[in-house]
Amino acid sequence: MLYGADYNPEQWPEQIWPEDVERMREAGVNIVSLAIFSWSRIQPAEDRWDFAWLDRIIDLLHAGGIRVNLATATASPPPWASIRYPEILPQDEDGTVFSQGSRQAYAPSSPVYRRLASELVRRIAERYVGHPAVIMWHINNEYGCHLNTDYSDAARDAFRTWLAARYGSIEALNTAWGTDFWSQRYGGFEEILPPRKAPYSRNPSAVLDFRRFTSDMLIECYVMERDVLRAAGATQPMTTNFMGPFKPADYFRWAELVDVVADDCYPDPSSADRVRDIAFQRDLMRSLKPGVPWILMEQAANAVNWRPSNASKPEGRLVAESLQSVARGADGVMFFQWRQSAGGAEKFHSAMLPQAGTSARSWHDVVGLGARLDALEPLPAPDREARVALVFDWENWWAVEGSDHPVVIDYLAEVREWYGALHARNVQVDIVPPERIERERYDLVVAPFLYLLRDEGAARLRAFVEAGGVLAAGPFSDVVDADDRFRSGGFLTQLGPVLGVGLDDFGALAAHPGGVAMPSPARDAIGVDWAGESFRGSLLAEDLRAEGAEVLARFTDGIPAGQPALTRYAFGDGEAWYVGTQPDRGGIARIVDALLERAGAEPVLPDLPTGVEAARRGDIVFLINHSAAAVQLAVDAHDLESGASVTGVDLAPEGVAVLRIPASARPASTLSTAVTA
Amino acid sequence: MLYGADYNPEQWPEQIWPEDVERMREAGVNIVSLAIFSWSRIQPAEDRWDFAWLDRIIDLLHAGGIRVNLATATASPPPWASIRYPEILPQDEDGTVFSQGSRQAYAPSSPVYRRLASELVRRIAERYVGHPAVIMWHINNEYGCHLNTDYSDAARDAFRTWLAARYGSIEALNTAWGTDFWSQRYGGFEEILPPRKAPYSRNPSAVLDFRRFTSDMLIECYVMERDVLRAAGATQPMTTNFMGPFKPADYFRWAELVDVVADDCYPDPSSADRVRDIAFQRDLMRSLKPGVPWILMEQAANAVNWRPSNASKPEGRLVAESLQSVARGADGVMFFQWRQSAGGAEKFHSAMLPQAGTSARSWHDVVGLGARLDALEPLPAPDREARVALVFDWENWWAVEGSDHPVVIDYLAEVREWYGALHARNVQVDIVPPERIERERYDLVVAPFLYLLRDEGAARLRAFVEAGGVLAAGPFSDVVDADDRFRSGGFLTQLGPVLGVGLDDFGALAAHPGGVAMPSPARDAIGVDWAGESFRGSLLAEDLRAEGAEVLARFTDGIPAGQPALTRYAFGDGEAWYVGTQPDRGGIARIVDALLERAGAEPVLPDLPTGVEAARRGDIVFLINHSAAAVQLAVDAHDLESGASVTGVDLAPEGVAVLRIPASARPASTLSTAVTA
Amino acid sequence: MLYGADYNPEQWPEQIWPEDVERMREAGVNIVSLAIFSWSRIQPAEDRWDFAWLDRIIDLLHAGGIRVNLATATASPPPWASIRYPEILPQDEDGTVFSQGSRQAYAPSSPVYRRLASELVRRIAERYVGHPAVIMWHINNEYGCHLNTDYSDAARDAFRTWLAARYGSIEALNTAWGTDFWSQRYGGFEEILPPRKAPYSRNPSAVLDFRRFTSDMLIECYVMERDVLRAAGATQPMTTNFMGPFKPADYFRWAELVDVVADDCYPDPSSADRVRDIAFQRDLMRSLKPGVPWILMEQAANAVNWRPSNASKPEGRLVAESLQSVARGADGVMFFQWRQSAGGAEKFHSAMLPQAGTSARSWHDVVGLGARLDALEPLPAPDREARVALVFDWENWWAVEGSDHPVVIDYLAEVREWYGALHARNVQVDIVPPERIERERYDLVVAPFLYLLRDEGAARLRAFVEAGGVLAAGPFSDVVDADDRFRSGGFLTQLGPVLGVGLDDFGALAAHPGGVAMPSPARDAIGVDWAGESFRGSLLAEDLRAEGAEVLARFTDGIPAGQPALTRYAFGDGEAWYVGTQPDRGGIARIVDALLERAGAEPVLPDLPTGVEAARRGDIVFLINHSAAAVQLAVDAHDLESGASVTGVDLAPEGVAVLRIPASARPASTLSTAVTA
Repeated sequence: MLYGADYNPEQWPEQIWPEDVERMREAGVNIVSLAIFSWSRIQPAEDRWDFAWLDRIIDLLHAGGIRVNLATATASPPPWASIRYPEILPQDEDGTVFSQGSRQAYAPSSPVYRRLASELVRRIAERYVGHPAVIMWHINNEYGCHLNTDYSDAARDAFRTWLAARYGSIEALNTAWGTDFWSQRYGGFEEILPPRKAPYSRNPSAVLDFRRFTSDMLIECYVMERDVLRAAGATQPMTTNFMGPFKPADYFRWAELVDVVADDCYPDPSSADRVRDIAFQRDLMRSLKPGVPWILMEQAANAVNWRPSNASKPEGRLVAESLQSVARGADGVMFFQWRQSAGGAEKFHSAMLPQAGTSARSWHDVVGLGARLDALEPLPAPDREARVALVFDWENWWAVEGSDHPVVIDYLAEVREWYGALHARNVQVDIVPPERIERERYDLVVAPFLYLLRDEGAARLRAFVEAGGVLAAGPFSDVVDADDRFRSGGFLTQLGPVLGVGLDDFGALAAHPGGVAMPSPARDAIGVDWAGESFRGSLLAEDLRAEGAEVLARFTDGIPAGQPALTRYAFGDGEAWYVGTQPDRGGIARIVDALLERAGAEPVLPDLPTGVEAARRGDIVFLINHSAAAVQLAVDAHDLESGASVTGVDLAPEGVAVLRIPASARPASTLSTAVTA
Repeated sequence: MLYGADYNPEQWPEQIWPEDVERMREAGVNIVSLAIFSWSRIQPAEDRWDFAWLDRIIDLLHAGGIRVNLATATASPPPWASIRYPEILPQDEDGTVFSQGSRQAYAPSSPVYRRLASELVRRIAERYVGHPAVIMWHINNEYGCHLNTDYSDAARDAFRTWLAARYGSIEALNTAWGTDFWSQRYGGFEEILPPRKAPYSRNPSAVLDFRRFTSDMLIECYVMERDVLRAAGATQPMTTNFMGPFKPADYFRWAELVDVVADDCYPDPSSADRVRDIAFQRDLMRSLKPGVPWILMEQAANAVNWRPSNASKPEGRLVAESLQSVARGADGVMFFQWRQSAGGAEKFHSAMLPQAGTSARSWHDVVGLGARLDALEPLPAPDREARVALVFDWENWWAVEGSDHPVVIDYLAEVREWYGALHARNVQVDIVPPERIERERYDLVVAPFLYLLRDEGAARLRAFVEAGGVLAAGPFSDVVDADDRFRSGGFLTQLGPVLGVGLDDFGALAAHPGGVAMPSPARDAIGVDWAGESFRGSLLAEDLRAEGAEVLARFTDGIPAGQPALTRYAFGDGEAWYVGTQPDRGGIARIVDALLERAGAEPVLPDLPTGVEAARRGDIVFLINHSAAAVQLAVDAHDLESGASVTGVDLAPEGVAVLRIPASARPASTLSTAVTA
Repeated sequence: MLYGADYNPEQWPEQIWPEDVERMREAGVNIVSLAIFSWSRIQPAEDRWDFAWLDRIIDLLHAGGIRVNLATATASPPPWASIRYPEILPQDEDGTVFSQGSRQAYAPSSPVYRRLASELVRRIAERYVGHPAVIMWHINNEYGCHLNTDYSDAARDAFRTWLAARYGSIEALNTAWGTDFWSQRYGGFEEILPPRKAPYSRNPSAVLDFRRFTSDMLIECYVMERDVLRAAGATQPMTTNFMGPFKPADYFRWAELVDVVADDCYPDPSSADRVRDIAFQRDLMRSLKPGVPWILMEQAANAVNWRPSNASKPEGRLVAESLQSVARGADGVMFFQWRQSAGGAEKFHSAMLPQAGTSARSWHDVVGLGARLDALEPLPAPDREARVALVFDWENWWAVEGSDHPVVIDYLAEVREWYGALHARNVQVDIVPPERIERERYDLVVAPFLYLLRDEGAARLRAFVEAGGVLAAGPFSDVVDADDRFRSGGFLTQLGPVLGVGLDDFGALAAHPGGVAMPSPARDAIGVDWAGESFRGSLLAEDLRAEGAEVLARFTDGIPAGQPALTRYAFGDGEAWYVGTQPDRGGIARIVDALLERAGAEPVLPDLPTGVEAARRGDIVFLINHSAAAVQLAVDAHDLESGASVTGVDLAPEGVAVLRIPASARPASTLSTAVTA
């Protein structure tokens, strides 16, 4: 189990380095990420290099038994780079240049940036590839975090090249993009620009391709560095730190190229859905690279600095959030950063060792967490815990949030609503694109807002139902092909036969009453009656035709009053449900209950009180109390930390129990609970 | 009666064109607008032209009996144009270039754009001027819709030329603009720039001239194409599609240059004032070119795509809105577009033939509407139905919404408040600039917020009252001259003697409590007492002196408590009212009732239930039920559609009756109504 | 007592100038500010000069007995200047140029602007330095009002020079800015740019230095003109008009360089805290240059023009606000402007002589105020009225509102909350930076949000308490040094020993619930119990350790429940309080009452009814009734205006009494009050 943090020794006088190592050992730290922002120190001018300080700190760490996750230092070019080569700077859609003075001021597609970066990586690799302290490579840092969409001339040139490779001929592009609309027909790739500021809506297929290109440029930078490292003889595992459900980069594609998935996770303490959202993020990380544990590469020991208001973490929160990561597949728990900075933009970001000193509460939490992680026996690799899949897809994300749609949809927020019902039931879920759906792995698949559905994804979903799976889809699904174009024949052209429904109209409800974006409870809603009980739907009230499907629920008001809202259709050996609106949480809960029952999918542990999370990793079950009240849970298990067999556990708020409960021995209804105030 | 749509056959394989024509005939379509966005197809490179496909579709339509409104295709230059000639691209006030990739990316004042466009028009004209299918010319498309205010160097040069023509000497400009304020005195026209981003408020007279210039540039483009068409021998009527009360272009000036007025109208289904606002738009279109029927050139068969939320139209809405247009002077009902696009930014915009296919409800509405319009006998040209005029003026719109005023005023919104009271009473109204006021045509003139009042307009209003008319003016009227300068002698210098009042102060009320723009009910209001009954005023509470006028109502609180709020003055053979605040809807209703009574102006039909609209076109009266309940109306009339004489009509929600009721036979109070739930 | 206005005769035909002088005399005007925006008139082209008109108006004013505050006319360059030298134009952080067409379109650091401006000043000075009418010099105008932060290449070059002078070596800058964070290490000053648009947060020390530089550039421009005037032999006092608590420029530094402080003050009539805020502004002006009366250089006679809604002033307001200025140290009351403009961006700004004419109410108020001021005997210079100091500091303002802090803080708003409690008690307050704290001058010092605390300021505060003063500090104080870096050793490193507390964590509360900036009542709050009574705290709930201090109050909920919220510590001969949150108004009131009692600080007059303000200037006490009700106050005094001894005064709303009440004779509790409805 890795335990540690980013470490930036260059910010401190060298004489305190030994104290740092001493404190690290006190905290149980066994690894640090080094040199992430050291480019300007390693290469203070284009023709000057300084590795001496880095040699010394690596040796010092090694002597102290601290291992190194060595960064390639390419995340932020030094000032001289953009002063000397201004063409490496990225631009926004207005053509405004992003200047130096912060971080990440480079265009990922810039040939000059790539030349400078690869030279730096080569020198670092050649120097440290064989150092025994270096056990992992940290390539760049949070690719695209602040600067992910670049419209510079470097991007223009690379986009043309990328398009030529994708389409082969300009005629193929004209067809895919539908350029006869609005007189956009191109005579050649040299006529194409990035989607810079335009008078009005831009071609959605072009925008979608620009998003693909943008993601690919980041991945290309990663691959470039990986190849330099490998060429220099590096054999250590390589990674770069992801940022959860990060829209600009398709992590499903990228994860295939890293040896281990690493994630940075900074939950908002003020969010009512914090626990759900971080569970979603951790399940996504586990799903990115099935069977391989991931690393929580960055989290905060206490408050962050970059929100308008940055609340502190209450006592125990740090432990609960860290063990939630382990429960959901992580084999490493790390922080940004080891020692709180005294200056710079992130000096108010908490660290393992706080500016306030070791009297601060968070230091004690950090030390306690280190000891607890150290005592955990090697855990089984996470793999096949989930029998339920939630379909989540980057291309669809980009497409469904395109402009000029029936209604503005926040894809991630709506998908999380469905995830939330599964999470609240402690049902283990994989989060995967449609091409990863297999009947052997899953009993139930939920696919909301799958607007852009590729041919293979459609085939997979069809085959899944045919083979006996339960599928729930909609609304606003199977609308366009991979080019963001309607297929001929209307809507639901791929899944209609599987679902037994046809669709005539989307029936947008107001997402923005009065022109202002409103949270879900305030936006327009429509009534739905399901066997005498009602829920409300929002965003869309689709005009559906049952074409074989059983109508389970109908709209009760608005334009489609009396029309189908929820349907079920037996197809092959399975069944397919369709919902023509986004139900409220009560509606989603009811649908999810029915789906779980139909699919025979079970929770990790049944009947847990609200706020208590259970997650399974092989035979190990983690119980985490996110509620504000202490709970007593009756459960027959082996307590991994006490080493004792128990018949129950007491969990204070933020408390965590780690139990061995073999999945085969999963007790159906032996669990009773009592809540103490 | 024209019935049809924009048709974009180049977006589809040629083999479906015959099916299109077949379907058009099924729907009753007799005209399509062709080639609006075909530039990149017609001229794929500067030296290549392709008319063959256009020849084929025009011939095919002609063979099918479908007439063609042929576009000049200049609305959106192809990509090659701005790649080769980047100087044609417009810029915003920051100097940011609007790129290609959407539509309308050209500077209207660009000499290069004008050269390319006129060459295109010349070739199209020469080829099709004599084709028997071509019965109308559609010049460009929605001029200025997205890109109407251009600050590029092309605009700079043209603005200097335009100003030199307007003022003759720089000294005249310095005087008109008051450039001694803030050290803005110009030494020559070559020192003038468009009102680009500046540190603070810009010279309001300069901004007003830039708005005049901007409107004129669009009109110049229109005239340029018109002249090319005429030079090539075109004799068909010519038009371009207006967009209702569109602030950037002065349609009163422009309407004199088109043969027939065409309008694009996309009402917001979510607006509580939808019916009022589209009635206003249609009355404006009728008023632009008195005596000549206009064409509803574009509307949506169902939802649009460009709002944050795009609701569908309920059953019958399409028919009700279309016949409302006819009732208010239209002789054509058309759509954007014939066949829903499969790709591009507007693929979610509904069309006559929907992507969902002919099973969709809207297709049946489209077919039904076609049959109904076809059965309507030729209708009388709209002409002298209205005895009431509402003053509306583009220059005043630009000026009254200038910066640095006592309070922020939404001119269109406030004018519509006055229109709404007249519309709710089913009083027919012309919407005209002050120079169009004549005693022979009108009995009552309402002139709210006539801040900028030209000398001739003032003279017309004075003459109108002198000759026995009833005028209602204010608030914030007669404040500045045509240069946006105060006239010497205070305020109300022109109308004060007609109104019998003087004005000492504007008394702004908060339009933006807490700094946030608020809708009318939430903004600051002041009490007014009118003979014991009260209403509330907003925006302004002017400090008025009665100089001969009778004080009808007084403010009850705030700074002007006890001072006049509403006055009436006998002047010449008529009388003039002044209101020193913007009354709430109850107050406006009461004032309008009194004005109608004083002027002897009558409704089309009296005593109609709320939500039932009556509009007259010669002897024909349209009754439209916009309410959610069915109504039964007792009326003696000839039903044009059934051919029968009736003593009453039943109207379902969205129902429309077309009746012959000669204006002379207008029954004063024979109408009784009963509403059924 | 100066009474007058800006006067812009060049906007009017010369024949009305004599009428202006006549009217000025009628209004009691004895001074006008001339030529502020006359550059384009004086120098219509680079090689042409026209002083004839200025000669004539100065002579005319002189003949009429009106003195001249002659402007240097550099506030707005003529159009030819930026057409010929576009490099004088400033740019925003995106690189967008601010164009001419408004005012103040110049980069303060531009060498070309400085050359042109100094030539203009030289010519004006040489011509008028000896004119007997000219009694004061008005240098430029409202420096930085609209354009204060310039990112142009001129600013870039000047910033590099400024930094080189400040730091001497690039290594010193790297240390101060902490450039090892995020790879920002500079190789030389030529690698530094202004903080232009960047991908993410910028270095806060760099941003702070850029704010210092920006303030210094404005001051440099002032000094440049002052030196030209002096070199030309000018001996008159010189000033430039400040704008109250104006964030971009450090007026404490600047005030040392002017002969007399002048202020422009335009209170928002709609603000609930108007009276408090203008009292704060006037106390700040008095504090800028102790012992020297200041001039209210600009105010509005009635409405302004630049807010979204510009309310008029009710009767008497003009008098009350003007005499409040005199009460708080002003020896001049002036307006923008003499005659309301007929054109230009400020034509709706009221003036002494309104566009509506002399029938308008405001003209009569203006004439009455002139007479009243004229009758006031020479007043004592304001000097040592205040025994209470409120710490206010520009560098801290810039730093505390930097990015990436625990919570977003509006420094001025929070400081004014503390000022408000003192003002409501009619306690006289000086507003000073920490370096101005002396035990001899003050008994009580309140220092809220003193985030950036310079070494000398810390020493002053410590010495103040040591010598027996009462200090109240916090929250978020003593966090960083002058470079915006944490000092080693944690937080409260300077004041902790004085306060007897240590700080472990800032405990941010939500400033922006739901991501929207909310006013104080709506933002997150935490409970505090103080001896059984409670108040609420907001923004922060600091995690405090009492290290010797007595805990007066504790948090009752949230993370720090039960921890100290308010402490008191005896240190030296004095005592120091610390508050770990921003209390609500009730909490601040209670703390302030306790502090005043501990420090023995007394109000100007005790027991005044709410809304009645008392301010002392030597022996003269002004009583101003800001409430909506008339009040009767019992007080033994000499009434300066009636010349009579009185035992009480009656004050209508907006009424003012000017009384002689020697400070030594200050009656402790002889004052009783009765309020009449």
